[in-house]
Order: sequence, then structure tokens, then C-alpha cells
Amino acid sequence: MTLLETVHSPAVVKKMSVQELNTLAEEIRQGILKRDSLIGGHVGPNLGFVEATLALHYVFNSPVDKIVFDVSHQCYAHKMITGRQNGFLNPNDYEKISGFTNPHESEHDHFAIGHTSTAVSLASGLAKARDLKGEKYNVIAVVGDGSLSGGEALEGLDFAGSELGTNFIVVINDNQMSIAENHGGLYNNLKLLRETNGQAETNFFKALGYDYLYVNDGNDVEKLIAAFQSVKDADKPVVVHLNTLKGKGYKLAETYKEPWHWSVPFDVTSGEKTVDFGGGESLDDLTYNYLQDKIKKGEKVAVVVAGTPGVFGFNEQRRQEMGAHYIDVGIAEEHAVAMSSALAKGGCRPVFFVHSSFLQRTYDQLSQDLALNKNPAVILVYWSGISGGDATHLGCFDMALAANIPNITFLTPVTKEEYMAMLDWAMTQKDGPVMMRVPNAVVHGDSVQPKADEIKTMAWAHKGEKVALLAVGEMLGLAQKVADKLKALQVDASVLTVRCVSEFDEATLEALKANHKVVVTLEGGVITGGFGEKIARYFGSSELKVLNYGLKREFTDRVPVDEIYRENRLVPQLIAEDALKLL
Amino acid sequence: MTLLETVHSPAVVKKMSVQELNTLAEEIRQGILKRDSLIGGHVGPNLGFVEATLALHYVFNSPVDKIVFDVSHQCYAHKMITGRQNGFLNPNDYEKISGFTNPHESEHDHFAIGHTSTAVSLASGLAKARDLKGEKYNVIAVVGDGSLSGGEALEGLDFAGSELGTNFIVVINDNQMSIAENHGGLYNNLKLLRETNGQAETNFFKALGYDYLYVNDGNDVEKLIAAFQSVKDADKPVVVHLNTLKGKGYKLAETYKEPWHWSVPFDVTSGEKTVDFGGGESLDDLTYNYLQDKIKKGEKVAVVVAGTPGVFGFNEQRRQEMGAHYIDVGIAEEHAVAMSSALAKGGCRPVFFVHSSFLQRTYDQLSQDLALNKNPAVILVYWSGISGGDATHLGCFDMALAANIPNITFLTPVTKEEYMAMLDWAMTQKDGPVMMRVPNAVVHGDSVQPKADEIKTMAWAHKGEKVALLAVGEMLGLAQKVADKLKALQVDASVLTVRCVSEFDEATLEALKANHKVVVTLEGGVITGGFGEKIARYFGSSELKVLNYGLKREFTDRVPVDEIYRENRLVPQLIAEDALKLL
Repeated sequence: MTLLETVHSPAVVKKMSVQELNTLAEEIRQGILKRDSLIGGHVGPNLGFVEATLALHYVFNSPVDKIVFDVSHQCYAHKMITGRQNGFLNPNDYEKISGFTNPHESEHDHFAIGHTSTAVSLASGLAKARDLKGEKYNVIAVVGDGSLSGGEALEGLDFAGSELGTNFIVVINDNQMSIAENHGGLYNNLKLLRETNGQAETNFFKALGYDYLYVNDGNDVEKLIAAFQSVKDADKPVVVHLNTLKGKGYKLAETYKEPWHWSVPFDVTSGEKTVDFGGGESLDDLTYNYLQDKIKKGEKVAVVVAGTPGVFGFNEQRRQEMGAHYIDVGIAEEHAVAMSSALAKGGCRPVFFVHSSFLQRTYDQLSQDLALNKNPAVILVYWSGISGGDATHLGCFDMALAANIPNITFLTPVTKEEYMAMLDWAMTQKDGPVMMRVPNAVVHGDSVQPKADEIKTMAWAHKGEKVALLAVGEMLGLAQKVADKLKALQVDASVLTVRCVSEFDEATLEALKANHKVVVTLEGGVITGGFGEKIARYFGSSELKVLNYGLKREFTDRVPVDEIYRENRLVPQLIAEDALKLL
Repeated sequence: MTLLETVHSPAVVKKMSVQELNTLAEEIRQGILKRDSLIGGHVGPNLGFVEATLALHYVFNSPVDKIVFDVSHQCYAHKMITGRQNGFLNPNDYEKISGFTNPHESEHDHFAIGHTSTAVSLASGLAKARDLKGEKYNVIAVVGDGSLSGGEALEGLDFAGSELGTNFIVVINDNQMSIAENHGGLYNNLKLLRETNGQAETNFFKALGYDYLYVNDGNDVEKLIAAFQSVKDADKPVVVHLNTLKGKGYKLAETYKEPWHWSVPFDVTSGEKTVDFGGGESLDDLTYNYLQDKIKKGEKVAVVVAGTPGVFGFNEQRRQEMGAHYIDVGIAEEHAVAMSSALAKGGCRPVFFVHSSFLQRTYDQLSQDLALNKNPAVILVYWSGISGGDATHLGCFDMALAANIPNITFLTPVTKEEYMAMLDWAMTQKDGPVMMRVPNAVVHGDSVQPKADEIKTMAWAHKGEKVALLAVGEMLGLAQKVADKLKALQVDASVLTVRCVSEFDEATLEALKANHKVVVTLEGGVITGGFGEKIARYFGSSELKVLNYGLKREFTDRVPVDEIYRENRLVPQLIAEDALKLL
């Protein structure tokens, strides 16, 4: 029996010797690597925070003392010593344990969190609740250096530094990396603090009112225990700044920090990925080549990302090739959008690349800084649509979020040809901001590229009668299957692709009235506030019946995609039957 | 002719002597007071920034050099010396000039901005565009101390401190106040810097990578000119920290800074308000008394605001009475929502009070930190609905923004009785977050208070037939007028109030099918993504026809409310006729 198998609760850890803790750390690392290598997950952040996790649980008394993990990238070790080691050691249990903290799994987890920059704010709320209730315990926020640049983290740090006045411990896991390299002045200060062993007078955290403690050996469990013991029960806010090694204990992850921040399944010995993405043509390549071509021609293109360049295929070589035209603002989506608005105002053509779920982090800037000012920035939204992922990373909310904001043109291409034509149009038009869902796969259409005046129209994939299937982006495939089912039921349904969800193509919608009785909308997004409801409104006073299909208003959590389709009645036969009933 | 009347452009200012500049400052102050006293506006922030504005225009060459004002509260003097003095001197021209910067008014304004914390991000985009285009000019961000606590400002400051590396000047207008007093550790650092004449080693701005210059006499035009000249054409980012006097030159505003931040029309000599709000019963009082009663009983209520307590009637006395239960996080809405989620998790019952338009500043925290975690925080939304205000402060987007997020219950009471019953229910239920539009006026209903199981239902105001009018909140009055018109046309229409826009009251909706042919929805919000479209979806496959009325997807800018109603066909006779056509 390994040591790890004996740890049924953090209480066991508290009784261990330093030597045992180090052995346990090694076993935990093997567990992290085993799970990540088999099903993928966060590698580097978790490997670097093993000793600190053990020291936290050795010193503090969870769950009475409350440890709040930011974005949870560093929480695997915590999960393993709070009764969930089987979720790492036993492949049959992998699906039971998520990659993020989750209160449904354990009383040691206080929030379900997958977006970054949250821990300080959340922990300060727990601390304030404790104070209002007259209770006594430690509240600890664990936040990675990369997460510090986000607005929520900065707001929280500013508040908690002066307004609590009671016990509040912020542990900075400084592994000198965001997902990619860090960007922002704050990181120069962290560097200065590391280089001066925490002694530099210029200290961001002290400026915000915190006591400050630096631990240079952030992977030395004995020194970490001493550090945490010295701040335990502190009666005012204190920052404990740990210098940790990202990827610690796995040479590849120590050396190549960015590609090993998160990984798909891999072979532990060689580091080779064990899944095949098929290769071939990719929209990442097409998009990069298109933009880089413009940059080479001297066009004032600005490529903006917020800390996640890998999502868009911007590897180090491409970043270098784009030079000053490539701007990584760090994890700071609000700033990314506001800055993009101003870049457009200043005569450049910015393209902000963003993960659908992280688009949520910047609603007000989309509305006020950008849309109200009608500056022609381009926003490319990745990983949109129906996904079987974690509840914290769903790509189904972007249309309801952004397409209802005035002045934003929201496009939903389906084929490669449509996408490239739309991108080219977006890069040259001057009317205002254009947002576009980048298709998740290359789909070759037999359609010709839409011309500029066709960008906002619906396109006929098939002209039939009685039933019109309106498919938003990726749903074209489903629409065609529904059409097949209807064909078998003697109905020759029309199929149309919806290229723009923020505006009506009135000419086409009116034309439908001539020989259709039922309009069916299909969208890979939440149905409330989405495109289908707009069509229901449009035809609400007409003779046409409307059926809307999309996702229920809910956070699905690691539900397989086919199950999501079934649960939302996105099933060709059922949709065909629904439509038939209305004829 | 006054000096101010001769200033047709900033070029005139550049030729003035210090004595003339001081005279001009005095004339500008009179202009500010005249306009504010007649139509209301921002008083203190503008009075305090007159000399700095003159010095900026004296030293820099606008619009080639670009001055970007944060939230624009300090921009009146700037407007007056960029050809828009008549908007202050001539009451007939007041409506032509807004209270915020506006590119449609002048080439000296670069953005339409009314939300706070924006200047640094926006200005950094202009600076980056300048660099990419190989141009040379100064970019200056002007930001008040109160705005610094917002996430967008902090993200922007962090980015620009290290990532630009070229000319970028941040002017901090430190008048030692947000709208109310400041909250956050940053403000202790500003205080320390003021007390040490800028010499303290602990320096927030230096920690982010800025050069730093302190000007203690922030209302001394000569010293300001010298300071700005010393940073003009600087080749790296620099912060110029000005210690200014909020309300300068108007004794009342100097003494009572919070009530004179912004004012309705007033008598300049006495300071008395010249508009009568009618007094009488107010929901502010009712809400405060309800919460304070709970606090006195020992309930763990936490009242959270983000820098704008006055909007909710929380004057200094009330803030003191609530004691530790009152939490002003400063201008930091993201933190306010995340912290509220954690306060609920920690066993308190938080109530976050927020201006409808500022709710936009925290979408991701509503979704991830709060709704995903289903913590029972309460959010009270003020100044919602149809307004004739500035494009930057519209209250019509809140329902489309928040009611489409899973797990959020969004309530829209109309009468005082409904509101109080809903508030009480929200404060005791445990299912998850509840958001509620606080009515803008006290409406007495003849309806009884809804019981707990009636909170999410629709209420019958009148049972008729053929046409059902579904009114969201404030629109009940309009619905009743439509019913009157229909009555005259021989139709006895039903009238129902919609208490909850995030969920369907299916029983009532199904009941409508029995004896109605047309359902009309009326909402004081943007129609895209709103409640009406959900009803259109609900009845899309039925025999019932649906007509949706609400606001077009647009930013209206100072359009009178009656005109907004007309332009959106919110006219009883027209709606009645539309419905009649479908019978």
C-alpha cells in the first residue's frame, strides 16, 4: 500500500514526517502524470504545487480553515489528499472527479471554478462572512501568478488589502508563467521580488496594504510549512509569495512550460501525444496565413490575445513572425476588448482571438468601449457551440451574450469558404465591430464564397417547400439529417444556413412565407436569448409555425455530446416528426 | 466679451499668460456651475480639474496629441475650450452637448464613454496604434482616483506599464474621493504618496513599471504646466499624480464632496435643489428599513454596493447604522458579485445593489462565480427600464443580459406590495441567486402580496378573452391603456403582469390557449434576447399569434422617453390595432 492510499483525509497528512511528506509528494506526482497521460489535463501547474498543497494541509485545518483555489489548475494534489485519490489512481474513477474544484465532490472544495482570477474575491467573501458571524478560522486564497492580471483578481486584491482588516492569507503560486509567458508590469515586480529574495522596496502587494512574506524554495515542504505556520491565525491580510517550479519532477514539463501547461493524453516516457487529431487543413493555419500575409504587405493589423495563444495556434514561431503586430495582454480580456476598440479607432485593424467561454469576462467593454463607439474591431470566437466539457468552459453562451448588444455583427460561418470570405469582409468593412464563431472543424462547402452584400444573408442549401430548416453554423449537418428524415416522410424540406445571427435577412424570411408552413431553427447555443427566439418573434404574427431547437438554459457538466443532443431533442427523427405534426 | 468666449480652440489657450489662464479657469467654473445648476450634472469632479485641463491643453497639442478622459466626469472644462463653450454658457445649446466625451461633437474627443475605469485601456490602444503606424505624438489618459479600483483600469495599468515601452502618460486626478469615500488598499497608497510628497518607497505605480511624478498643487496652473512639460514626449510610460481639490471654487462642493459629486438642478447661492421629487413613500426607505430590521434582529445580512451608495439612498447615517453589514467595495462590480457569492456560501445573505447599466460590468462573475455555484445572493437592480438618458447609462439591457444565464431567477415586480413580498422571498429562499428590478416609483397595487409559490407566476390583473396583454414590470400601465383602447374596439382583453422573466409560468400560458387568439408582450427592455421572444418561442408551434413590444436593439442617446415610446410603437392605439388585425 502506498502512502497516498492511506490518506483518507488531510488529518493523515498532518501526522507525517517531512520525509514521508516528500515520499507522498512523489506519489502524488505519479498520480497526476498517470491521469493526465491517460485523459489529458493540467500538467505543469499541478506538478509545481504539490509540496505547497501538502504544507497547506499540514498547517491549516481544512475544511474549517478554508482554502480557495483560483481557476483550480493547481488543485489536483489537494483533491488527492481530500479523499479523491482514486480519481487519479484508478482509471475507472477518472470521470467521477473533475479537473476543477467542485463542492459536490468534497467539503474541502468551496466553489466550482474554472475561469481564472477568482480566488481572492471569493475568499474575501468567506472571510467577511466569518467576521459577520463572529467565527474564527483561516481563509486562504491560492492564486497563480498568471491569474493576477485579471480584473477580478486585481479588484479583489485591492479590496481585501484594506477593507477586511482580519485574517486573510493570499498564497501566490509564482511559477513565472501564465499559460504562455506573462505580460504586464506586475510581472516585472514579481521578478524583482524573486531576485531580491522578497526584499525590494517596490512591492505591489505592500502598496495594496498586505503584509508580505517571500518563500524562495517554493517546492521545499519544510520551508513551506514554516512559512505557513508563521502566518497562521494572522489578524490582518498577508501575501505569501512562493517561488515554485512549474512542471516540477517531470523533466519535459519543467523544460517546455507552455506546451505542458495543459495536455491531451500523452506517453509519459517520450512525451508524445497519444491522440491523433488527424492533421490536414486547419483554420488556425488559414487564419494565421491570411493575417500574416496582410502584415507582410504593411497593413496595420494587430493580433490581440488574452493569455491563451495556444488555443489559436499561435506557437512561439508565429508570435515572433508577427512581431509588434502580436499583442498578448495577459489574462485581461476587458483590457483586450477596450484596447482593440482603440486600436481600430487609431487606424489599425485589431483581431481579438478569444475562447468562447472567456468572452463572458468582458461584456461591458464589448457594449460600451466597443459597440457604442462602433469601432471596426474583429473578434474571433473559438471553441463555440455544443461541448461535452466542464461546466466552467461551455461554448454555448456566446450568441445570447453578444448578438443582443447593439451594433455588433455576429457571424456564424459553417464552411471554410464562408469563413474566409467573412474574415476578409470583417477585416475591410468600416461599419463597426464584427464577431465571428470560428468553426471547430474544416467543412468544405459546395457553396461559392459569399460576396460582401451576401455576408449577412441566409444561404439556401436546398430549396424545398412546407418546412424550412434554418441552421446556425455547425448545425447545418443536423439540418440535412432532418431534411433526409422528412424526405422519407414525403416532405421536401428547405435547408438554409444562417450566416448572421444578429440581424434578420428579411428578404429571405419573407420569401419563406410563399410556400412554407413551418420554420425550424437549429442552433448550437443556449436557446434563451438565442437566434431561434428572434425568428419566433419575427413570425409570431404570421401564419407560419416556428419550432426552436437549441440548448436548454443550464450548465451541463461533462455530459457527453451525444447525450446533450438527445436531452435537447436535437435528434433528426424527432425534429422531423415535430415538424410534420404542424403541417 | 469674456476670455472664454474667445477660446475657439485650444490653440488660443496656448498663447495665454498664467494670469489669463487663471481668469479663464474662473470663467469656466462659472460655466460649469451655470449649466449644472440649470440642468444638473457632475459638479465636484469638473470643478477640481479645470486648471489641469488648461495645463494639458497648454502643453499638449490636441487633437494630434490625444487626451482620453476616463468616464468623462472631468471633461467639462475640456469641452469648453474645444469649441463647445456655448453648451455651458447658452441654455439653448445645453441639449447639443452631452455630459460625456463624444467623438460626434469634436475631434478632441476620441471615445463616447460613460462607464468608469476605461481611459488607460483605451489610451493604450491609441498608443499602440500610433507605434504600429510609426507615428509620433503624446497619448494621455486622464483617470480619477475613484476609477482606479475597477478591473478594466487595473488590467490596463498593468499592461501599459510594461508592454508599450513608448510614450504613454497617465494623469491621476486624485481628489481623494470616489463618488463616495474610496475603498481599497490602493487608496492608502495614494494617501501615503500625498503625505510624503510622492517620495514614499512603496509606490503602486512604480511597482507596475511606471515612472512617477507627483504634483501636490493640482490646482496650480503654473505648476501643472511645468509638470506636464517635463513628461511631454517621454519615451516610456509615466504616471503624473495630481492632488486636486474636488469641488474647487464652490464652497458647498468643496465641503460636502459626496452630495456634490453629481447634482440635480440647484440654486447656486443656497445650494438648494430646485426640483421637487414629490417626497412621499420611497422604495429606498422601505428597502433600507426592511434590511436594517433584519440586521437589528441579528440576521447575517450583508449589504454590498460598488461605489455608488447614493443611488440606493444609503446616506452616511444609514451606512453607519448598518455598520459592518454595509460593504462598499469601491468601483469594482466584478469583485462585488464574486464576493456576494462567497458571502452567501459562508452563511450570510448578501444583497448587492447595482445600477442597471453597471450590472454589465460583471457578466462572468454572475455566470461563473455566482450562478454556476447556485449561491443564494440577492441582486437589486436600480434605474432599469426605458430611460431618456445618455447612451452610456441605459437601463434596458439588464434582462437580456442576466435572465438568459442559467440558475438566475430574474423578477420584475410592479407594485410596492409585489416588490416587498419578492424581496422577502429572495432573502429567505435557498435555491440560488435572485435578481430583481427595483421599480422606479412606488406603485400601489390592489393585488395582494404574492405568496412564495406565486413569486414566479404571472398575475391576472384582468381576465378577459381573445387578446392577452403580458406586461413586464413597469409596462403594466401601458398594458392597461392598450386594454382600454381594445375595449373601445369591442375587445375585452386580458391583462397579466409578468413577475418572473427567467422562467415560464406554464400553467397560466397554457390557460391562455383556451380563449385567447393573440398574446401581446410588453417589456421595458431591449426586445432581442428579452422576455417577449421567449413567449414567441413558447407559442411558436401553437395556434396563438404573438406580438412582441419592447425596445429596438440600439443605443439611444438623450432621446426623450415619449419619443422612445413612439419610435418603438409603444403606443396604446397602435398596439390595439395590431392585435385587432390578428383576431
